[in-house]
Amino acid sequence: MEKFFDPKSVVVVGASNSPFNLGATICNMLKDYLQYPGAVYAVNSKGETVNGYPGYSSILDLPETPDLAVIIVAAKNVPGIISECAAKGIKRVIIESAGFSEGGHKGQAMQREIDDIARANGIRIMGPNCLGTLDTRKKFCCFYGVNPSLVEMGRIFEAPGNISYIIQSGGIVVLVIESFFYDLVGVNKVVSIGNKCDVDEADLIDYFQTDETEVIGMYLENVANGRKLMEAARKSRKPVLIYKVGRTQEGAMAAMSHTAGMANNDKIFESACKQSGIIRLQSIDELHSMPKMLTEMPLLKGRRIAMFTNSGAFGSISADLLVGADLEVVRLSPQTQEKLKKAGQVFNIKNPVDIGPAPPQTYLDIYEILLSADEVDGILPLLSVWQTFVIDTLLELMKMCKHYGKPAAIYTPNAIAKSIAIRAKHRIPIFETAEQAVRALSVSNYYYESLRKRNFIPVETGVEKEKSHA
Amino acid sequence: MEKFFDPKSVVVVGASNSPFNLGATICNMLKDYLQYPGAVYAVNSKGETVNGYPGYSSILDLPETPDLAVIIVAAKNVPGIISECAAKGIKRVIIESAGFSEGGHKGQAMQREIDDIARANGIRIMGPNCLGTLDTRKKFCCFYGVNPSLVEMGRIFEAPGNISYIIQSGGIVVLVIESFFYDLVGVNKVVSIGNKCDVDEADLIDYFQTDETEVIGMYLENVANGRKLMEAARKSRKPVLIYKVGRTQEGAMAAMSHTAGMANNDKIFESACKQSGIIRLQSIDELHSMPKMLTEMPLLKGRRIAMFTNSGAFGSISADLLVGADLEVVRLSPQTQEKLKKAGQVFNIKNPVDIGPAPPQTYLDIYEILLSADEVDGILPLLSVWQTFVIDTLLELMKMCKHYGKPAAIYTPNAIAKSIAIRAKHRIPIFETAEQAVRALSVSNYYYESLRKRNFIPVETGVEKEKSHA
Repeated sequence: MEKFFDPKSVVVVGASNSPFNLGATICNMLKDYLQYPGAVYAVNSKGETVNGYPGYSSILDLPETPDLAVIIVAAKNVPGIISECAAKGIKRVIIESAGFSEGGHKGQAMQREIDDIARANGIRIMGPNCLGTLDTRKKFCCFYGVNPSLVEMGRIFEAPGNISYIIQSGGIVVLVIESFFYDLVGVNKVVSIGNKCDVDEADLIDYFQTDETEVIGMYLENVANGRKLMEAARKSRKPVLIYKVGRTQEGAMAAMSHTAGMANNDKIFESACKQSGIIRLQSIDELHSMPKMLTEMPLLKGRRIAMFTNSGAFGSISADLLVGADLEVVRLSPQTQEKLKKAGQVFNIKNPVDIGPAPPQTYLDIYEILLSADEVDGILPLLSVWQTFVIDTLLELMKMCKHYGKPAAIYTPNAIAKSIAIRAKHRIPIFETAEQAVRALSVSNYYYESLRKRNFIPVETGVEKEKSHA
Repeated sequence: MEKFFDPKSVVVVGASNSPFNLGATICNMLKDYLQYPGAVYAVNSKGETVNGYPGYSSILDLPETPDLAVIIVAAKNVPGIISECAAKGIKRVIIESAGFSEGGHKGQAMQREIDDIARANGIRIMGPNCLGTLDTRKKFCCFYGVNPSLVEMGRIFEAPGNISYIIQSGGIVVLVIESFFYDLVGVNKVVSIGNKCDVDEADLIDYFQTDETEVIGMYLENVANGRKLMEAARKSRKPVLIYKVGRTQEGAMAAMSHTAGMANNDKIFESACKQSGIIRLQSIDELHSMPKMLTEMPLLKGRRIAMFTNSGAFGSISADLLVGADLEVVRLSPQTQEKLKKAGQVFNIKNPVDIGPAPPQTYLDIYEILLSADEVDGILPLLSVWQTFVIDTLLELMKMCKHYGKPAAIYTPNAIAKSIAIRAKHRIPIFETAEQAVRALSVSNYYYESLRKRNFIPVETGVEKEKSHA
């Protein structure tokens, strides 16, 4: 699987110098944006060079057997090209072309032809109808259509992270990647699997156990082999987050016209997720917003939450939200309240703790008092950034969370553009709304419970992680 | 009420040159940011001038009776100052100081003293524990604490709009105002009413019937006079949107420590809202995100929605969301499908309509086909901005919506920072997520139905508005 992400040599079948050629956009990306160090070849009818990469009129003429073939030609030509791949001994193929099982009977017949050749020759296939792979560490990406408006995409390669995605749709890939432009939490790998005629989400969950991935995010329009997916998820030592369409009949119908395959009964899927420890996401945004809670914070090991705010209204709002999420607005013990009283100008020493204008030390003291309290499992800081020192105290808070093995879901009640600006500059997992922060606490605790149910000891998260690195 | 927003003369009681003086921040805002044309006076113990505004040691010494007194001194001094206001003949007072009914028995006693003086002298009071008023057209604002980090606030005065807010908490005021920095849809007036000992949300709903307001947004922590609020809302010819905390016992408790007053039984409130046509918001964000659907688009007069996307996945996602919102994924008629077939490279002529790369005219044709279809009440364009011309077609779409009297809830599936950037530059009501766009359709239809129930003819929205302006 590794070489799907880091091929020493790759051929782009269908890359040419014709106007609007999609294969050429892949060559341009590899050469101009990524300076990909591996060998790249182009195959097109004229055998012409594409952006400096040597061109051939047939795969059979290539000077070596590449690790990977990326195919982006009209669907009807794909079966022939797969035969050539087989003849050349190529073992990994990404078919980006559309028009197969999502395109009626003729497409389905071609799909079967491809499956037969692949099976007979031990070829693994990604797609069809996909974008293929992206690896931020190896600086490889075979997505087509990356035009000037996406040049920004280069940004996510600058700060590789530990979140990997398996996404069944190109549009969602672009949205998720763009979201990380404004974030210091980063991406490891992205796979767009399209119709997933061979390599599927379960194969990739297995693979992501072996690399730098810490969290696996998925967008699925259908599940072909539910048992295989659930088994892979159940064994996964890394959190698996899934957004799946087709919750309704209408959504399932729409999905069918898009990437083929029946979307499945949603209730069955829901209960299977619970058994396998899969975190089911409630919106596409959560593909971007939730992983940071799992990579940057210890897990929430109980449901008792203390709120801390310098802007009273957000405490009331969040109390409603915590109760709605089945979390507990903890009653602080008399000892904790006594300590808070001494910490500075605290308007309310009960939960939500509410402070007026205060120096940085007061913030730090309150973090410490709350995190060290036995009755508190996690905290919800709702802190307006009136003064920039608040941001500095949040960096300290992250260390304290690791020390105490308890998470904080941080919300800075600012207009969203301002929150994004803070997050782009500081490595703080800031949520965009109070709803998102509360949801993150909920997700964290759900995942912790799923580990316990599966008899896994949470070794690689939060305080345990800090210790194991020490 | 008008002179609370546009006083010809105002005295800021408590403004001085002491360090960290809050009254001075009001004087600075009026002078430096707003160049407020009215007369401004300062009252402080030394009688000193504040930022060029003449100072006096007592209200009684002022050279005229100002239209408005803004009081920001320690709570214990407030009753005495109210007496002086009465003696001077001042009829409008904003008490920004905290420490009254939210501050225990002593505060409550002072509150009663103030109420008595005010009643005896025909003085109307806003607050206490509030920020007072802001008027973008008259360039008046008496919010305290506007420091350099809020200088940006000046921006919302540059493009006055038609949305007015009544907000019971300073923190929420700042959040909502900041959100409009990145939006060409604009604000008319903002009132922070705090403990609302006299002027309350119902008075302001009545007042906003008489000015440029088109939509009224509210954040409430408690309702003192439910009957009065519901009656004002029921009579309102302008949509009233309310976010109220205290949905849960915990939220209500937290609110009590913040702005005093019992938050009320939520189920009763919910059903009263339905009867009065109040649109109940589900998150603080909706205070900013929903009004544009009501100011910029015709109302949704039925529940049958057509989706149009150039990025397949979002059609499937939104189909789920529409069903979840009790809207209908309409079956397009054979005639409509026939027209779509001729419009260009359409992958799917059924709902969701899904297109591949296409020129601007194809977008325009599809908007027209869908909006003119009898079976369609409104549309949900889910359009990735691959090319910038998509934005231009959206400007055309807005005209078409007005022509056909049907709304479009526009979502451009981009990272949120990019969506905000588009919205800041173009006067298009773009939503930040598919969830938000679907919710906007739902809100629009809810409001339309509430007008019908109240036997109001929706005269001032959408196509009717265009006609009446023609």
